[in-house]
Formats: sequence, structure tokens, C-alpha cells
Amino acid sequence: MKQAVTVVGSVALDDIETDVSQKTDVVGGSAIYFSISGSFFSKIEMVGVAGTDFPKKTIEELKKYDIDLEGLKLQEGKTFKWGGRYHSGLQKRDTLYTHLNVFKNFSPNIPDNYKNTPYVFLGNIQPELQLSVLNQLESPEFVALDTMNLWINEKREKLMKVIKRSDLLIINDEELTDLTEERNIIKGVRSLHQEGIKYIIIKKGQHGAYLSHFSTSDQKDSSLFYSPAFPTPLPKDPTGAGDSFAGGFMGYLASCDEINFTNMKKALVYGNIMGSFSIEEFSIKKLLQIDKKDIEERYKKLRKISTI
Amino acid sequence: MKQAVTVVGSVALDDIETDVSQKTDVVGGSAIYFSISGSFFSKIEMVGVAGTDFPKKTIEELKKYDIDLEGLKLQEGKTFKWGGRYHSGLQKRDTLYTHLNVFKNFSPNIPDNYKNTPYVFLGNIQPELQLSVLNQLESPEFVALDTMNLWINEKREKLMKVIKRSDLLIINDEELTDLTEERNIIKGVRSLHQEGIKYIIIKKGQHGAYLSHFSTSDQKDSSLFYSPAFPTPLPKDPTGAGDSFAGGFMGYLASCDEINFTNMKKALVYGNIMGSFSIEEFSIKKLLQIDKKDIEERYKKLRKISTI
Repeated sequence: MKQAVTVVGSVALDDIETDVSQKTDVVGGSAIYFSISGSFFSKIEMVGVAGTDFPKKTIEELKKYDIDLEGLKLQEGKTFKWGGRYHSGLQKRDTLYTHLNVFKNFSPNIPDNYKNTPYVFLGNIQPELQLSVLNQLESPEFVALDTMNLWINEKREKLMKVIKRSDLLIINDEELTDLTEERNIIKGVRSLHQEGIKYIIIKKGQHGAYLSHFSTSDQKDSSLFYSPAFPTPLPKDPTGAGDSFAGGFMGYLASCDEINFTNMKKALVYGNIMGSFSIEEFSIKKLLQIDKKDIEERYKKLRKISTI
Repeated sequence: MKQAVTVVGSVALDDIETDVSQKTDVVGGSAIYFSISGSFFSKIEMVGVAGTDFPKKTIEELKKYDIDLEGLKLQEGKTFKWGGRYHSGLQKRDTLYTHLNVFKNFSPNIPDNYKNTPYVFLGNIQPELQLSVLNQLESPEFVALDTMNLWINEKREKLMKVIKRSDLLIINDEELTDLTEERNIIKGVRSLHQEGIKYIIIKKGQHGAYLSHFSTSDQKDSSLFYSPAFPTPLPKDPTGAGDSFAGGFMGYLASCDEINFTNMKKALVYGNIMGSFSIEEFSIKKLLQIDKKDIEERYKKLRKISTI
């Protein structure tokens, strides 16, 4: 049964530089990437804030998708801005600036209509805000969160509280090391499971992603799955890849009859697929060009690539 | 039908430093790692040179495996030595020194008994020596080669000759970039296939490996396969991982009835398995501790990790 997913995250106008291109004021933000990606599979309810400079054209575009915008607040002022420069090869990046703008006083207000939604994705925002979202919800069935080095280093205690109240943590390999002081993925994942989180996804960028499940009741039921990234020859802009991944993962999972490891494995592959589309153009351009058929085609190809 | 594989490569006594340990004069070299790994699947014929300081104990150990040592020359003098230091996390390393010693005037002399062997692995040695090996062989069915940045940068023309005469090139992602000036694996692999090589394996270290097949006659038959690395929580010394990988790959492939993409996919998984054992102890220690049952167990686990 197709369910809905509530996402809380950033809505942004990014400035992005790569070796070959430079773009200013392009639409971005975790909630945006997540929502479009996820809406191919389930209804997405977006919670976030945009400034009055956020393009109305984009709002109109989003309405064409299965995205509920009741939780998107439009506020007098400028939209959150992230400025970044990618190194040659697109695998490393430097943040040039972050202008919080209307995001500065953002306090997520969950519409009543969203409070019983079974699936929740807490995008990469301050742990306090993530906690405030959880406190507003009735009793979500499945909560996933993303985070970043800044919160790991500066708000670890609060972050651990969010993690303990969630079902799935989605982070990248560097963040895992920061969080656990373990460079080895297997050791790092194990120590996080000890903290009480059942599912962990480790994103490894161009290499793919691990999904780890730890069962406290039956350790033999604990499982590991790896899905390689879809090998695209045309990466242009990695911004939003992780959020597109999370959208594909959560959107697909919410469309399944139940939460089990087999469905989560498929969800991981869909996550990789959505990430691969996202990076092929700047901003959300590519995500707006594809349809369900394109997604299914890549899913089949990626399955073939990773199956003996 | 189980076939034999001839390997030509280095025999070494390495000095290895990691964060937690320092070892001097430990047995290493591409031919050594390759032979032990490969011998779990097929007969391996080793061609190389060792100095009189090479431990007799190791020679005796090798004899317990399905390894033919007729092509291993023992020469007055010191064995080839590589000294290296691994960075914290074991993912990067610096070469501290290379003492060629008896390897300096090494000219591979293929025993008559090896000249009709159908499978050949040209370890990472000078392209001229790789060519001289090919010139001594009757008509091998399947030739694979490894190489390194030094030969890519300094002996590109000769190296390209070897590549054109081979069926499979096994390199890592950095070497692919050096060879093709492409950072994108898919583009790099494509441009190498254009040079006429049918199969390419791209090793991505801890992330796993790609196998790419390009069919000139039927491009629809071209295929890609990805196998993640076996996730070991206990890496100690990555030295020889790539050669253990190659040994597992070639050894398994030679044990198959025919060379086809399905068998090569399985061979890639066995390659990853042998690499994962190799790194769990310094030198060849772990490889000497395992048996076929350990290998099959990991094979099953890795298949499970990567299969939906």
C-alpha cells in the first residue's frame, strides 16, 4: 500500500562551481531534491521554508508531482543559500559560504495533516530541529535521518538523541568515521548499532552504498547489503545526490507492503538510481526530465551489473 | 576442466610500516601472492627470481600448494626489496625505497613445460619483460596483465603493445586515469576498449572491482559487472591485495569449462575474496592459514551481500 513520507529539510538557492561551469541561484536544498525523487514512488509532504525570491516557476513545477506543499512556508526575505566549489573530478568540494537567510529562524511546524504520516525523513538540519519534529509527530512507523560533520562535532549529544529515536541513519563514510572514530566501515557500523539504531546506510559516493541491519533479538538475522552506484559517464553536479538518494530510498520503501530487509535492499538500489540521475545535470534539472520508465530501466541495468 | 596458469612477476622481501606495526624482510612480491591465491583453484606455474637470502622455509611452504616452481630462479645475491609506509586507515601508501637487487637483470625465461599453458598472468613488471614473455609462448588462450603508474608514464608505447596483445587488463582506478586521462571510470574503460582490449578489470581497493567486457562484433553483448570488496573488519596490511585478487580471478577462471562472462563474474568475486584474506595479516601469513572451505564460506557471504 502506497504511503506518504514527510520530509523536513532545507530549500535553497545554490551557487555552484565546477571545472567546466558556474551556476548562480539554482534551486537546491535537501527537501527539494528529496521530494522530487521520492514523489516518483510515494506521496511526499514537504516541510521547509523559502524566501520570497524562491522562483514561483519551481513551486508550480513541484505541484505537478505527488508533493504536498502545505508545510512549505514562504517567508519575507531571501532563501537559504549554499555556495560551493567542486574539485576536478567532482569527488571533493569546498563550501565557499552559507547564508542562512530565512532559514535562520526556521522552526519546523508540522501541519496537522502530516502528524500521522507513517514515514519521516529528517534532512540534514540542526539536531534540535530534528528533535522538535519528532516531538510533534503522533507515532511514526519509520523515521530516517541524515546529518553532517558540523552537527556530529558540535552537537553530538543532541544528535545521539535523534539517532536513538530513529530507525535508520543515512550518512556517508567520512561522517561515520567522525561519529564513531572508526575508519573501518564494518567496525563503525557495529559500534553505531550498539547505540541502538536498527538500520544504517553508509553512502560511499561514486562507489555505492551499504545497508546494514542489526537485530538485537536475533543476531543471526542481522544483514548487510551493498549496492554499487549506477555508473553514469556524465556527472555534472553532485549537489543533492545524497538527498535524491534518500528520496528514492524512502519513497520506494513507503510504497512497499511492509518494511523488511528485501524491500530495503530494493529501496537502496532505487536510491542509487535517483542519485545517478540527479548528478547528470545542475540543480534539479535532470530529475524534472525523467519519468518512471527511465527509473525502471536503470533499476534493471543496475541489478544486472551487480548480480551473478 | 582445470587448467594451469603461468605467472611472471616479482618475488620480494618487503619492509612494511603501518600505524600499529613495522615488519622487516617479510615475504612478498606479485608472483608469490598470485601463486598462493591462484593455487586454491588451479595449478600455478611461477616465473620469477629470488636471491639466496629468500627463506628456504617459504620455498618449502609453496611446495605444499599446487605451485610449479621450475620457473623460479634462485640467484646469488639479495632478493628484490620494496619498502613502504601506509597512511592511517591503510588506504594510501608511500614507497620508501625499491632495491631491485637480483631483479635488476631479470630476464624471464619460460620453461618449455610452461610454453603451452593456456592461461598467463603478466604481473606488474616492465612492459619489455612482459613482451618478452609473450614472445616465448606458443599461443596462450587467455593473457591478463597488471601494470603501474611508473610504466604508464614512462613506457606507455611498449605498454600499449602488451595491452593490445592481451585479453584482460587489470588496473586500479588511479592507473585508469593515468592511462586514459579520464577520471570517469565508464569513459576511461570505453576508451581503453577502443584500443582493442576485450576485458578490463578496474580495482577500487576497499570498494570492490568492476569487470567490463566489450564485444566488437556485437556491442549489445558488451557487459559490466561490479563486485563489492568483502567487508573485513580486520585489515592489517594491504600489500599484495591486488596480486591475491588477480590470483583468485585467474585461478578460478582457469578452473572453469570455458571463458564466458558468467564465469568471469564468479572469478571477480573469488578475486575479491582472496584479496580480503590477504590483507588480514602481514605478508602471506593469512593466505597460508586458510583452506578451500574458508574461501567458499566468504564467497557465499559476498554473494548474499550483493544480491537482491
